[in-house]
Amino acid sequence: MFSITVRDHMMVAHSFDGEVFGPAQRLHGATFVVDATFRRPELDDDNIVVDIGLATMQLAKVISEFNFRNLDDVEQFDRINTSTEYLAKVVADRLVDAIHAGTLGESARGIREIAVTLHESHVAWASYERNV
Amino acid sequence: MFSITVRDHMMVAHSFDGEVFGPAQRLHGATFVVDATFRRPELDDDNIVVDIGLATMQLAKVISEFNFRNLDDVEQFDRINTSTEYLAKVVADRLVDAIHAGTLGESARGIREIAVTLHESHVAWASYERNV
Amino acid sequence: MFSITVRDHMMVAHSFDGEVFGPAQRLHGATFVVDATFRRPELDDDNIVVDIGLATMQLAKVISEFNFRNLDDVEQFDRINTSTEYLAKVVADRLVDAIHAGTLGESARGIREIAVTLHESHVAWASYERNV
Amino acid sequence: MFSITVRDHMMVAHSFDGEVFGPAQRLHGATFVVDATFRRPELDDDNIVVDIGLATMQLAKVISEFNFRNLDDVEQFDRINTSTEYLAKVVADRLVDAIHAGTLGESARGIREIAVTLHESHVAWASYERNV
Amino acid sequence: MFSITVRDHMMVAHSFDGEVFGPAQRLHGATFVVDATFRRPELDDDNIVVDIGLATMQLAKVISEFNFRNLDDVEQFDRINTSTEYLAKVVADRLVDAIHAGTLGESARGIREIAVTLHESHVAWASYERNV
Amino acid sequence: MFSITVRDHMMVAHSFDGEVFGPAQRLHGATFVVDATFRRPELDDDNIVVDIGLATMQLAKVISEFNFRNLDDVEQFDRINTSTEYLAKVVADRLVDAIHAGTLGESARGIREIAVTLHESHVAWASYERNV
Repeated sequence: MFSITVRDHMMVAHSFDGEVFGPAQRLHGATFVVDATFRRPELDDDNIVVDIGLATMQLAKVISEFNFRNLDDVEQFDRINTSTEYLAKVVADRLVDAIHAGTLGESARGIREIAVTLHESHVAWASYERNV
Repeated sequence: MFSITVRDHMMVAHSFDGEVFGPAQRLHGATFVVDATFRRPELDDDNIVVDIGLATMQLAKVISEFNFRNLDDVEQFDRINTSTEYLAKVVADRLVDAIHAGTLGESARGIREIAVTLHESHVAWASYERNV
Repeated sequence: MFSITVRDHMMVAHSFDGEVFGPAQRLHGATFVVDATFRRPELDDDNIVVDIGLATMQLAKVISEFNFRNLDDVEQFDRINTSTEYLAKVVADRLVDAIHAGTLGESARGIREIAVTLHESHVAWASYERNV
Repeated sequence: MFSITVRDHMMVAHSFDGEVFGPAQRLHGATFVVDATFRRPELDDDNIVVDIGLATMQLAKVISEFNFRNLDDVEQFDRINTSTEYLAKVVADRLVDAIHAGTLGESARGIREIAVTLHESHVAWASYERNV
Repeated sequence: MFSITVRDHMMVAHSFDGEVFGPAQRLHGATFVVDATFRRPELDDDNIVVDIGLATMQLAKVISEFNFRNLDDVEQFDRINTSTEYLAKVVADRLVDAIHAGTLGESARGIREIAVTLHESHVAWASYERNV
Repeated sequence: MFSITVRDHMMVAHSFDGEVFGPAQRLHGATFVVDATFRRPELDDDNIVVDIGLATMQLAKVISEFNFRNLDDVEQFDRINTSTEYLAKVVADRLVDAIHAGTLGESARGIREIAVTLHESHVAWASYERNV
């Protein structure tokens, strides 16, 4: 299995609902360093997994929806705890949509799996992976 | 599949038995930067993999047994080569025990896999992963 | 010159006032990975720069005032842009106060300089350094 | 499953053929930080995955063929786009050959999977993994 | 003293002239991860060292001249060994020029020092620092 | 001012004498990732700070004296607390000796400062810098 990963980041505010979150129930924030991994069993005709330029641009586009925002005010997250692991899924699902829409190029339809990791600090990170 | 990872470290002395270890047969030491990963297919009711506070405390507790010790003098390692890969298993097994004991919270029983990585330097690390 | 550095982190929300900040004028957030460096020309009687346990605890204490908060609501930051470089100074000044108060131990009075670096992402960080 | 990983690097020039590569069609270069991972379900009689000294030497040997070269002039890469993901496979295949040849020691025959990651920058990397 | 640092990277081919360079006399390549640091004794009216957006864009512009090129073919480097330390100076000098030209904003004229670090691998980097 | 830095590591056991060290009074160990920085105001005739090959070899040689050892048994450290900051000085002093002995090449006599950083974990490191 081959893969490539590209990295970007977003800076958001949010709060959590539930005693398990302790002080993180208060409005606070995070820098999420976001790694998006694309996997496929065989390379395409150019000998690559995906056009890294398109992959980088698409990841930036997905992130730009949330970057420099208070996620508590973003409609799609109404009454949802925007945990690191949950946000990893949101980013991964968007990237799968982009593959199906052809935004990453025709040959990107050969991608079989997506994994997204969000680093919230130097001592904690979360991932979500799924089939395309 | 979702996951979260938390990082801590321990500083130990030890020696190895066997020609394959060369100069590492002598009493020496290591800082092990320890990454513990918890995986499950679905998030719990709070939209998380596990209470990250409990996960961090439990990892610290497991590590505290070995931190600032000479592993050659720890009874459970008698006549055992405490290689990086072996220690990764020791930490992983303890975390699985904690899940079964309910120490990581009731919802943590949904965790399906544990992976532990020990970084022994900037150029070498070892992992062990298992089902819960 | 000798130095030691200890690392911790804090997760905050804030917004900025001024066109120069672009989208960062909106309420957003950041994880700041905080490195505190203590410098002195000679080591103390224990052959160290400072008790690393006390230094770590003191940094954690300084950070805990801001961690998991919206800095826009913190009184001391009223009408102040809490830029990364400014926050580095806030942390550094508190550490100097702690040295003068003896909180880092008597021998810590030999520390001559403090430098604090706040990493806001994998591609940007800011520092402040001053004499003690 | 157990694993160990060792890290090394190589510095090469190359160019790519195909519009998808944009400015990377020009002769340029890269530092590839190379991580080689060896996996097996059970440890050997010395309680390790593989002799880390032999693994490190073998990785260095594989890399030395390409290090400080223009890959466009290397015969085995004639008319081949030496993308990061493709080079990860080249390194992985060589390590599998070494295992079969016994170069990593007799007990290394218990290794079941190899994964190789090439980091081309702080924001992009590629991997290839295969069975032994 | 305050500072901010922004990071970018470039991927170049080059060769060196002189026996001291050993195999690096051959045409090879490097990824340089470039850190540009801006220092000043007091913050500006917005409480910052420099507009981080402008600093990031200017660094990208300087780097774009060299990125995806064979430095042996770049006229300004004719008969010059483009060592990592030398390239750090080239980037730093360009950033100083930009400050003087006002490209980083009027308040950036308060910047007193520039430091540029080029990381050529995980085990080697070089820096150049100068007054503005 | 120009500089280059090279990185290596050593794995040692040791213990500390003094209540300030708490549990680190017990025999334990550390991986020290060692960064050696060489600084000079002007580059030499080859456009470099120092032959990076010689610098790397010399650092490895200095470290090899201590690597895979219990520092409590090394004669030169008798009754000395081998703190991270103290060991940074030991390595720096040896590198200065090497410069004076000409081991780093004739042109290395232009080096004016040495700085050595020892990383003991992902959250703590120490440095020593001196003139040559």
